[in-house]
Amino acid sequence: MEGSRMNYEQIMKVALERGFYFPSCEVYSDAQAGFWEYGPTGLSLKNRFIELWRREMVRRDAMLEIDGSQIMSKSVFEASGHLASFADPVAQCTKCKSIYRIDKMIAEVANIIIPENADLEEFDKIIAEKNILCTKCGGKLGKARKFNMMFEVGIGPEAVPSYLRPETCQSIFVDFPRVFKTMRGKLPVGMAQIGKSFRNEISPRQSLIRMREFYQAEIEVFLNPSTVNEIEGFAEIEDTELNLMVDEKTIQTMTCKKAVESGIVPNKLVAYYLGLLVEFYQKSGIDVSKSRFRKLGAKEKAFYASVAFDFEVETSIGWLELVACNYRSDYDLTAHAKMSGANFEVMDGEAKVLPHVFEISMGIDRSLYTIIEHCIRDEKENERVVLSIKPYLAPVHLGILPLMKKDGLYEQAHLIFNGLRRKYDVFFDVSGSIGKRYRRLDEIGAPLAVTIDYQTLEDETVTIRKRDAMSQERIKISEIASYVEKEIAYP
Amino acid sequence: MEGSRMNYEQIMKVALERGFYFPSCEVYSDAQAGFWEYGPTGLSLKNRFIELWRREMVRRDAMLEIDGSQIMSKSVFEASGHLASFADPVAQCTKCKSIYRIDKMIAEVANIIIPENADLEEFDKIIAEKNILCTKCGGKLGKARKFNMMFEVGIGPEAVPSYLRPETCQSIFVDFPRVFKTMRGKLPVGMAQIGKSFRNEISPRQSLIRMREFYQAEIEVFLNPSTVNEIEGFAEIEDTELNLMVDEKTIQTMTCKKAVESGIVPNKLVAYYLGLLVEFYQKSGIDVSKSRFRKLGAKEKAFYASVAFDFEVETSIGWLELVACNYRSDYDLTAHAKMSGANFEVMDGEAKVLPHVFEISMGIDRSLYTIIEHCIRDEKENERVVLSIKPYLAPVHLGILPLMKKDGLYEQAHLIFNGLRRKYDVFFDVSGSIGKRYRRLDEIGAPLAVTIDYQTLEDETVTIRKRDAMSQERIKISEIASYVEKEIAYP
Repeated sequence: MEGSRMNYEQIMKVALERGFYFPSCEVYSDAQAGFWEYGPTGLSLKNRFIELWRREMVRRDAMLEIDGSQIMSKSVFEASGHLASFADPVAQCTKCKSIYRIDKMIAEVANIIIPENADLEEFDKIIAEKNILCTKCGGKLGKARKFNMMFEVGIGPEAVPSYLRPETCQSIFVDFPRVFKTMRGKLPVGMAQIGKSFRNEISPRQSLIRMREFYQAEIEVFLNPSTVNEIEGFAEIEDTELNLMVDEKTIQTMTCKKAVESGIVPNKLVAYYLGLLVEFYQKSGIDVSKSRFRKLGAKEKAFYASVAFDFEVETSIGWLELVACNYRSDYDLTAHAKMSGANFEVMDGEAKVLPHVFEISMGIDRSLYTIIEHCIRDEKENERVVLSIKPYLAPVHLGILPLMKKDGLYEQAHLIFNGLRRKYDVFFDVSGSIGKRYRRLDEIGAPLAVTIDYQTLEDETVTIRKRDAMSQERIKISEIASYVEKEIAYP
Repeated sequence: MEGSRMNYEQIMKVALERGFYFPSCEVYSDAQAGFWEYGPTGLSLKNRFIELWRREMVRRDAMLEIDGSQIMSKSVFEASGHLASFADPVAQCTKCKSIYRIDKMIAEVANIIIPENADLEEFDKIIAEKNILCTKCGGKLGKARKFNMMFEVGIGPEAVPSYLRPETCQSIFVDFPRVFKTMRGKLPVGMAQIGKSFRNEISPRQSLIRMREFYQAEIEVFLNPSTVNEIEGFAEIEDTELNLMVDEKTIQTMTCKKAVESGIVPNKLVAYYLGLLVEFYQKSGIDVSKSRFRKLGAKEKAFYASVAFDFEVETSIGWLELVACNYRSDYDLTAHAKMSGANFEVMDGEAKVLPHVFEISMGIDRSLYTIIEHCIRDEKENERVVLSIKPYLAPVHLGILPLMKKDGLYEQAHLIFNGLRRKYDVFFDVSGSIGKRYRRLDEIGAPLAVTIDYQTLEDETVTIRKRDAMSQERIKISEIASYVEKEIAYP
């Protein structure tokens, strides 16, 4: 693509000015960090991204999608381990009372890496040895303690303690018995959910990258562990290429088939979903040549994972983890069965099994940021910033631009708008020069713009302009809808 | 329509068994009332309902839709009045500690109506006079107190008090200055949002009807109060009929035009949106002859409303309020401007105005329940329960049913499924007799079912069956997609 890439700060400026995203409660001084709003442009992009995910992951694979409550009972998180383990190590300045994520502070100040789940004494030891002090006031730090990242809420006048879910997948696990039964499930079966999750991050940062309230799209594949190499659709993706990070410095690119044969990916089921994921992100417009699957070591993995791959993509702010793929084995269903007393076993043919789970946990907000960064260009020679996004993901499908407000051009343009507005996202723009209006549409990625001019009144034709080629042609008004339809069609 | 109507309990049974909705955290004994999950069928219905709302309200009217954080700062609710006023009167049993919504208890036990926002002394007086006791243990009740229905959450390690929003509209008000400016707004302009809201109800009940965590679709129309009778699109809806409740016993049906002329609806702007709303619900399949707009009296209205109409629909559990339409004047923007110090005024032509707000606040969950109730029938003569829902709202578009699992019929059916699965919601069903499989599809409202039989292998034709007429015809495999497309098209 032409033009130069844009970095995080340049994209933030476009995001704020063009309705992509902006800080929550920004007019108030007690606005809290880590909360962001999607404006009309960003919301539309998000909706189309979700529709692509449904096409390429959920419906393609006949998964069962649910939409569960965000507030869940305490027992759920006792069983899941979040109440005990979903905590960051912190230490508070004894003088100014600032609170620090202590593992990160030690890494920054003393350049010593201590895993976040290390014993608290290890942090205290390093703080004492290296004489680490408050970076704000120089005061002494208190003892390290665990800070649980779940938000607690009290239900009813009795304020029964419950929690905002820190990940959407817990609803899927808890709902599995009913959904599997009533929807006539058959192993392996994916259950999926899109929704908000909440984490009380100590240092939220970088807008959509680390939020306290964020969107996840999670898929939990329930499977019989004895049939992980009998995957019906494997042939569909066996030649799809994965960039697999085999050690700190080496990325090997190989097909899904090879990845299984070489043992780098443990079985066909896992390889199948890694392949689906790459195909999905390719269709989202992310440059997957800049992606990698990073196999996590024992210390990095989440407490529930037996095998874990992070799908990471290169951006101007470094490698971003967009998806965590975890083989969770029967950790979750065993824990919920034990805590609840309910039966989570199901029949697979003649055999009764407690399914294992393979998880594909996607961060939606980060994915959207990465799509924007990979698709946006500053074309200085054309004096424009252009979001060359896939037309089926475009926040606005087309602009409708009457050349002038007078002489019946506005009315004619409005008639055309009326014929399209229910089905398509149309931006009707009457102010400024046509050139300026094109620029605004380019920034929000509208693949098409229709201009209504004096010739329109004579012969019922309009000029239609394509975003990427900046080519223009005249077509009949009656052809606009089918032109748009063809342009925004999925591949 | 044929068949008999079904009531709340009968529908609940279908909902639980066919993946519409079910209680949250149901395997756990500490599951809290008022939280429900959408299963695959219900979620699909919800998504299509939202798409219809976007078509008929948001895009039709070129509204600006946003998606804001659910957790919002304390200042927001100090300004909005929720911290002070969004509370129910409660009283606690001094013996068994049960807590009661005391206005409802007095109404039930003593048949005395006290408004929920009355002075607390009024409740204490009646409790003493009528000797109202705990209905569980007969204990004495303590003094009435206010119970705020917002859920508080603590942000960061400092636990800064913030709240889960009790209505989605507060994000719209707070975000108005930026969105209006960056999206080049022009009064009157609607801003819209769909999302979760949270209310700590004392007595949640009736599944989707009164929840603690629920979906709203809210529209706030920002307008210049001096131009409420200059509405561009008024001609489009002036002949749309509204059922207006003019007093406790009388409903007058009249066009939007008449409603304004008679003074029952205060201006064209309000009538325009009431008209849009009725057209929207008509297209959702709700029988709008069973609907009414109820004008609220001074005591019933929310604390911010100057004129209020509830859109109510008749169901087996009585009249349900699906939408609250409130003329909020400049209550909200004035309050937020004052509290934040930000400027909420905008230009309308040459004039600087602080916009007034007309709100259309829709309960999504209740609307979905009502659609199901108005569309579902028990056809005893055909031995089936059928959800005769509008095809464009159908949770599943079509079923694909191989007559047998053997002889290549399964494989042929799967090929057809593969060609359709990305775009349509397809239910592939191989188990049980074809008749049983038709029944299951009828219950979830699938408008079409395709059967693959031995003739298919010979001449590439299938049987396609229509849900409502139960008619069958043979079409070519290559014609299925266009057949479905035509069937589920919007009117």
